[in-house]
Amino acid sequence: MSPPSTADYIINHNKTSPDLQAASSKLNAEGNKQESAINLLLTTRLFTTSTDDDIEPIPLKWDSKSSDYKERGPVVCNFYKKGTTQHNSIGAHSGCYSVYHGLAVAAKQLNPNFHPSFENTDPQFTIPYNDNWTDGESIVSIDPFGHLAIPENFPDLAESVDIRPSIAITKAVLQLPDIQSLVKEGKLPVDGKIVLNKEGDVAISKIALDSVWYLPGIAKRFGITEEELRINLFKDTNNMYPELITRPDIKTFLPPIGGSTVYIFGDPSYLSDSTKNLALRVHDSCTGSDVFASNICTCRPYLIFGIQEAILQAQKPNGVGMCVYFQKEGRSLGEITKYLVYNARKKYGDTADKYFLRTECIAGVRDMRFQQLMPDVLKWLGVKRIHKMLSMSNMKYDAIIDAGITIDERIPIPDDMIPGDSNVEIDAKIHSGYFTTGSVKTKSELEKTQGKEWK
Amino acid sequence: MSPPSTADYIINHNKTSPDLQAASSKLNAEGNKQESAINLLLTTRLFTTSTDDDIEPIPLKWDSKSSDYKERGPVVCNFYKKGTTQHNSIGAHSGCYSVYHGLAVAAKQLNPNFHPSFENTDPQFTIPYNDNWTDGESIVSIDPFGHLAIPENFPDLAESVDIRPSIAITKAVLQLPDIQSLVKEGKLPVDGKIVLNKEGDVAISKIALDSVWYLPGIAKRFGITEEELRINLFKDTNNMYPELITRPDIKTFLPPIGGSTVYIFGDPSYLSDSTKNLALRVHDSCTGSDVFASNICTCRPYLIFGIQEAILQAQKPNGVGMCVYFQKEGRSLGEITKYLVYNARKKYGDTADKYFLRTECIAGVRDMRFQQLMPDVLKWLGVKRIHKMLSMSNMKYDAIIDAGITIDERIPIPDDMIPGDSNVEIDAKIHSGYFTTGSVKTKSELEKTQGKEWK
Repeated sequence: MSPPSTADYIINHNKTSPDLQAASSKLNAEGNKQESAINLLLTTRLFTTSTDDDIEPIPLKWDSKSSDYKERGPVVCNFYKKGTTQHNSIGAHSGCYSVYHGLAVAAKQLNPNFHPSFENTDPQFTIPYNDNWTDGESIVSIDPFGHLAIPENFPDLAESVDIRPSIAITKAVLQLPDIQSLVKEGKLPVDGKIVLNKEGDVAISKIALDSVWYLPGIAKRFGITEEELRINLFKDTNNMYPELITRPDIKTFLPPIGGSTVYIFGDPSYLSDSTKNLALRVHDSCTGSDVFASNICTCRPYLIFGIQEAILQAQKPNGVGMCVYFQKEGRSLGEITKYLVYNARKKYGDTADKYFLRTECIAGVRDMRFQQLMPDVLKWLGVKRIHKMLSMSNMKYDAIIDAGITIDERIPIPDDMIPGDSNVEIDAKIHSGYFTTGSVKTKSELEKTQGKEWK
Repeated sequence: MSPPSTADYIINHNKTSPDLQAASSKLNAEGNKQESAINLLLTTRLFTTSTDDDIEPIPLKWDSKSSDYKERGPVVCNFYKKGTTQHNSIGAHSGCYSVYHGLAVAAKQLNPNFHPSFENTDPQFTIPYNDNWTDGESIVSIDPFGHLAIPENFPDLAESVDIRPSIAITKAVLQLPDIQSLVKEGKLPVDGKIVLNKEGDVAISKIALDSVWYLPGIAKRFGITEEELRINLFKDTNNMYPELITRPDIKTFLPPIGGSTVYIFGDPSYLSDSTKNLALRVHDSCTGSDVFASNICTCRPYLIFGIQEAILQAQKPNGVGMCVYFQKEGRSLGEITKYLVYNARKKYGDTADKYFLRTECIAGVRDMRFQQLMPDVLKWLGVKRIHKMLSMSNMKYDAIIDAGITIDERIPIPDDMIPGDSNVEIDAKIHSGYFTTGSVKTKSELEKTQGKEWK
C-alpha cells in the first residue's frame, strides 16, 4: 500500500515555492513509477525554503571569544518573519512546551504572528561574562547569552527574525515546611538576609535555563562525531527535526526537553569568586519523591539536606549556597520506565544486588542523565571551586572535576535522612561507586539489603 | 548561499533505497538548476521507507468499540525491526525523554537494537475496561491500552515491530512532612490502611501516563480540522516530525512532552463506582512551588490541601481520594516565560488587575494548558461523579462537566493556606471566573491587591 499522495496537499500550502510547483507539475506530467517516487519524495520538502538561494542563516559564532553578544550572534530558531531562510538553530523555544505553543496556534488561541514584549522583564540581577561563555567548548548545552536574547538587544535583526530568551533571572522567597521546622526548633538561625524571619521564609535568587545544544560541542563531549550525533538523534527519535540531517551548516539545536533551574542562597556574585565557599547540591528531578515524598528513594531527603546546607553555608562569612535542579525524571528514562522497574523490583524480591539490573533489563542502560553536560551551568556562573559537594554520585563528581572545577569535600546524605525502603537504592549505588564515608557492602551483603514486597 | 549538498551524505546512510539512489544519479547527471533543486529536495527523503510499496502500518482502530486490545491494535512508533514501514504512530516513546534515548544511542551507551524485557513489570493493580476506551472520542490524549502494550500481548507482531507501554501502574508509600505534622497534631487519624502509622506514612496506588494523541480526536476537541492541527503543529515547532504532513494516513502522535501521574488514596476500584464519594485534586506542575515552596503562588499549598482532603475522604466509608498531576510547567508556557512574567510584575508594581496582562504581553495568551484534554484520564479510570472537586479553576470545572462527569461540590483553598504574596494570583483568578465562596473583587479593588516589589 502506498501512502496517499500528499503532493497537492503540500503545494496548496506552499504557494510561494515556484521550484516546488514547477517540479511537481513536471513530474506529474511524466507519470512513470520512478518519477512518481520522486514526486512523493518532493512532498517531504516541507516549507524549509522557497528557493535554496535564499538561505542565509544569521551568523552564530559559538567560539567568538568576545564578551560582546552581538559578535556571538543571537540564537534564532523560529521561522517567523524571515526566519524560514535566516534561522540559525534547529528546534523551538521553551523545550517540550513548544508543542503546546503549536497547539495554541492550531486552536486559534494564539496568533502565530504575535510578537512578545519583553519590556521590564530584565534579569533581576547580573551574571557577569566569563571566558567560558565563548571559548567554544566549556559550555555546549545552554546559550550563555540566553538571558540577553531579546529584540531590543539586536535592533538590526529584530525586524527580520524572532529573537527570544532561553534564560530568565529573578528572585523569590521560599516557605518549605522542612526549613520552617528547623527554624522553629532553633536548628537554623534567623539572620534576616537568607532566613528572613522566625516563620522560616528564605530569600533566594533563581535562574531558569532552557537547553540549547551546540552540536559539535555535544559530540566532542561524548567522543563521537557530529555526524553520528545528528543521525542517531534523528533516527532514534523516529525522524524528529529533519534539519538535523538536511542542514549540517546549522550547528545549534533547541531540543524539546526540560531545562534546569538554579537556586542561589546568598550573594550570586560569590559564585564566581574562588575565595568564597560554595555549598552545592546538583539534583535531578523525581516527581514521586521531590513533590510527593515517596519513601522508595532518597531524592527529596537529599534535596532538603542540600537546601539546609546551602542556607547554613550562605549564613557564614564568605559563604554561598546553591541548588541546581535538572528536569531529568527517572534518570532521564521517564516515569513509565521508573514504575515498570519498581514492579520488577518487587516481583524479584527487591534486593540491592539486583537494583541496577532491573533497570538494565527494561531500559538497556542504568542512567541516561549524561552528567557530562551538567557542569555547563557551573561554568556559565563562573564557579571554579566547590567547598562542599552535597552529592555522593561519582558520575556528577567526575563530570565536575573533568570540567576543571575543584571540590574540597563531599558530603553524603546523613543516615537518619534515608527513608526505610531506600536502603536498596543507596547500598546499590555505593557498591557501584557512589561516595561514602561508611563501608561499601559486598555483593553477598547486598543480597541481604531488601526493600519492597509485591502486595 | 545554498546549503551544502547533502545528497551523498544521505545516500551513504540509506543504501537500501534503490529509488533514492536511482533518482539521485539521474538528477546529478542532468545538472540543471531546477533538477538540482529537486536533488536537494530529495535529501529530505529521510529513511522513511525504501520504496513506497512497502508501507503497511499495523492497524490501529481508535474507535474499535471492543474491550479486546488486539482488535484495537497496539501503538507502534519505533522504526526498529520492520517499524520503518509498519509503524502506525508518529513520534517516540517516553515523551521528551526520547531525546535522551537518542543521545544514549549516539553516545554508544545504548544498543539501538536492545529489546526491553517487560517480564514481571505487570501492573500492580487493574484498571478495568470501560466503553470510553474505544468509543473514538472520549479519550484522545492517552492510549487507554497503554499499560497492556508489551510484546507478550501481541505475539504475532512482536517479531516485526517494537511494542512498548505508555502507562505503568504501581504502588508506593508517601512521607510528606505536611501530612506527618497533621498526624502528629492529631488532625489526621491513623487508620492503618491509608495513614499507616503514627509516623504519618501514607499508602497510595499510582499510575504514570505518557501522552498519546489521536489527532482527529484532538482536532475535534478543539473545533478545528485535522489538517489545521497537523500543519500548525508542524510549522509552529519549526518542522518537528514531517510525518505530521507526509503521512496523513497515520492518525496517532506521541509528542515530546511530559505526561501525567495519578495518585490514588484508598481503593482504586471505587473510582469507577458512582456510588462512591471521590475527592479529586487536578494539579498542573509548578517546580518553584511544588518542589521549592515559593510564596508567589498557591500551587503547593493547594496540592497539599488536595492530598489532605483526598486522605480524609478515603478514610470515610465509601470514600476514595485522588490527585492527578500534569507536567504543565507555568501553565504550559514553561519556566522561562514564568520568570519573565515575575520580573515584569515586579517592575510594574504587581497589582492583581494586571496579573494576566503581564503574561499576555509576553506569551500572547494567559494559559496553554488546554484543560479540554485533562478529563481523558478520568474517563479512562471510569470516573462518573466527583463528590468534592478540590479546585477553583473554571477551566478545569468546565472541561470535566463537558466530558459528562458530574461534580457535587467545589472546595476552594482555605484562606489560611494562601501565602502572603499569592493574593495577587488568587484575586485575579477569582475576578476572571475562578470559583469562590467569598466575594469577587472589583477592578478597582484588584488594583489595591499588591504583591512583590522590585528589589
